[in-house]
Amino acid sequence: MNAVIDPAHVARSLTELWSPRVLAQVDDYYVKVAKVHGTFEWHAHDDEDELFLVLAGCLTIRMEHESVTLSPGQVFVVPKGVRHCPVAEQECHVLLFERNTTKHAGNELTPHTRSIAEQLRPTS
Amino acid sequence: MNAVIDPAHVARSLTELWSPRVLAQVDDYYVKVAKVHGTFEWHAHDDEDELFLVLAGCLTIRMEHESVTLSPGQVFVVPKGVRHCPVAEQECHVLLFERNTTKHAGNELTPHTRSIAEQLRPTS
Repeated sequence: MNAVIDPAHVARSLTELWSPRVLAQVDDYYVKVAKVHGTFEWHAHDDEDELFLVLAGCLTIRMEHESVTLSPGQVFVVPKGVRHCPVAEQECHVLLFERNTTKHAGNELTPHTRSIAEQLRPTS
Repeated sequence: MNAVIDPAHVARSLTELWSPRVLAQVDDYYVKVAKVHGTFEWHAHDDEDELFLVLAGCLTIRMEHESVTLSPGQVFVVPKGVRHCPVAEQECHVLLFERNTTKHAGNELTPHTRSIAEQLRPTS
């Protein structure tokens, strides 16, 4: 049976930046959390939307034609195919919801790229 | 382009209980919020998992072999096929994540049943 999860608590406990960890699965979709700080690489997910929900701090999502900044509790969905670059000027904790095939750094191999197996490591 | 959403803010503004409203879409999945109070009907979703994230208040999810109670910020995924009955002894605001075909009251037609069209009405 599934467990009750506290994403904000898990996100606080993470020690590695920009390294999403899977907390739950809804059909073929993963709920992930990540601790981020600084600037991620520009990338896109050609076939998958990606939901960001900020748990703590602020996250700016730069896109080619606009930017949005999310405060705690706010949600933004980056549409499939839209190149984006997440930026956190201070430490930020974020919940992600995305298909289990989604590569979190898109098709680019970046210093931040983590495999799905790495993302599935237990968090405690 | 998508908008920044504040699910807790929208949930507070709802006037009707147990009437989920769609705030965002991720591929074929909906992000919904609902204001709930009291006891919902027992039901199951045969083919779809259903994620609950409590935004305010507390929600108990009764299942046949256990119950869980979620505090604000906590998440639980009811696995597909598991009969469940959400209960909120006080007013509770909840975010749902489920496939866009999911009937929120399962296949039962209940006084609480809302069509997808009703759930898609603008919230402001």
